[in-house]
Amino acid sequence: MFKTEICDIFNIQYPIILGGMIWVGKSDLVAAVSEAGGLGLMGAGGMTIEEIEAECGKVAEKTKKPFGVNIPLVRPDSEDMINAATKSGASVIATSSGSPMKFTRMIQDRGCRVIHVVANVKFAQKSRDAGVDAVAAEGYEAGGHNGHDEITTMALIPQLTSAVNTPVIAAGGIADGRGFVAALALGAKGIQMGTRFLATHEASAHPNYKEAIVRMTDVDTCVTGRTTVGPTRSIRNRLTDMIVNAEREGAKPEALFEMIGEGRSAMACIDGDCDEGSLYCGQIGGAVKKIKSAREIIDDMIAEAKMVIESLNPLISK
Amino acid sequence: MFKTEICDIFNIQYPIILGGMIWVGKSDLVAAVSEAGGLGLMGAGGMTIEEIEAECGKVAEKTKKPFGVNIPLVRPDSEDMINAATKSGASVIATSSGSPMKFTRMIQDRGCRVIHVVANVKFAQKSRDAGVDAVAAEGYEAGGHNGHDEITTMALIPQLTSAVNTPVIAAGGIADGRGFVAALALGAKGIQMGTRFLATHEASAHPNYKEAIVRMTDVDTCVTGRTTVGPTRSIRNRLTDMIVNAEREGAKPEALFEMIGEGRSAMACIDGDCDEGSLYCGQIGGAVKKIKSAREIIDDMIAEAKMVIESLNPLISK
Repeated sequence: MFKTEICDIFNIQYPIILGGMIWVGKSDLVAAVSEAGGLGLMGAGGMTIEEIEAECGKVAEKTKKPFGVNIPLVRPDSEDMINAATKSGASVIATSSGSPMKFTRMIQDRGCRVIHVVANVKFAQKSRDAGVDAVAAEGYEAGGHNGHDEITTMALIPQLTSAVNTPVIAAGGIADGRGFVAALALGAKGIQMGTRFLATHEASAHPNYKEAIVRMTDVDTCVTGRTTVGPTRSIRNRLTDMIVNAEREGAKPEALFEMIGEGRSAMACIDGDCDEGSLYCGQIGGAVKKIKSAREIIDDMIAEAKMVIESLNPLISK
Repeated sequence: MFKTEICDIFNIQYPIILGGMIWVGKSDLVAAVSEAGGLGLMGAGGMTIEEIEAECGKVAEKTKKPFGVNIPLVRPDSEDMINAATKSGASVIATSSGSPMKFTRMIQDRGCRVIHVVANVKFAQKSRDAGVDAVAAEGYEAGGHNGHDEITTMALIPQLTSAVNTPVIAAGGIADGRGFVAALALGAKGIQMGTRFLATHEASAHPNYKEAIVRMTDVDTCVTGRTTVGPTRSIRNRLTDMIVNAEREGAKPEALFEMIGEGRSAMACIDGDCDEGSLYCGQIGGAVKKIKSAREIIDDMIAEAKMVIESLNPLISK
């Protein structure tokens, strides 16, 4: 069931992909998602080359199924990161925040597949021209870094699938079978989830962070960083209030950088500081009511998606 | 086909609703949408009491089918507006920007139905408590005024349908059969469209405005007014650039009001000034490639939605 082109391209059972999450998406979660029939992508943004090799090695011990690594191309050592991943068993590289032209061919020449993350039609077209295997189209509701254009998943996916033939993976705003079917209806061939997989037993996030997601409501995220690191969505807390106020007063980028400092994301993920750390999280976190295993999430999602499609059928019988 | 609770409640053929649009949604468009099987809602925000009566009278001459009027409750004469609408043939009142407690019972006591526009779960719950017949849930991608919480349609609809039993009409990001089916998959029982219906022969907008929608791409809207009139999405132009720059510099509300002045929306809709006027428009405008009639839009949407559901079915057969 739910076999799409995305399953064929990545040799997976379900077109359900774990978004790469810094600090959070390590070997346990990556292996669990792949083992449950999805595609685990490691969030390598905060890892050294040695850590990437070690974590990939651990995934390969836990599962024989395909997995991948997300590489933010802003990292100056991104080529070394890619090399570390592909030689340590990753068969998929998801590239983001940089040009898809840079490494796509190199990665594919090693027999690996490439996903490039985009947030508007123009970059999807560039990714197609670069020959990527799939684009992950990320809407404004997604957690963590997102595009300056603020295009939402609902508006982005149909415009993008009309513009390019490259298979599209919808990301942002999806946490259950309803969102999965909605994404497929919009023309996506698969989905990517971060926030939903963050609230799992296997995610390497501090328990406080996972609990913050379970407790949050629909209105509890905000976007900061438009003038500095780029728009970033996280759970509202003391830190975001401080940034929002400063931004509203027209604070200059330098002053904002000084105020925020370094390591806010690690502070949340590793130390569990939910007041002063950056709790990257999507708007759909409000729909996450329980910490589950990655397998439960995928199994529940498939069962619910089947019911959703069955419930649509009577609408087209006269 | 596509008969849902929304059809029963409003006595219409398809659960497709014309969002109330100031200056644009007048008798021609309202009647055309209702006559084609949807529910036309007049945008009465810029009308006098006499104009509401006259326009409702014209709709009633053009169609025997149900239609409604959108009343922004911020207007000090909103009760008079409601009275004018219900005595002139409107059978549905859509209320927005105010408390659903205020007039719901009064309107229903006249045998009319009430839709209240919301943008988060809390206001949907308040609307349910007020006894409205349906809530229109408007995502951040929608054109014109939208919520401060910036919740997108994809994230909003499932959280809202889980929270209330009142039927939900999804608004924002929908322009074709793909979006229609996606909204139904998310749990909505109907959809509301503004932007798509703005680019029709029947809309009372200047041709320049309609053409601007046909020409625009996915990245061509932006939100301004967060600190003044509330977040408002429109097509980027000289006016929005000016406002965005001033907001970025931390301009105070008074200075912004002074700069913007009055009548920017009429300037776009009536005079066709696409540089200095406010061209309210949703992100899905980038998917609108042709000016059509309201009937063509609805017919095409139903045909496409049927194909979309048919294309989902093979995914659940083993």
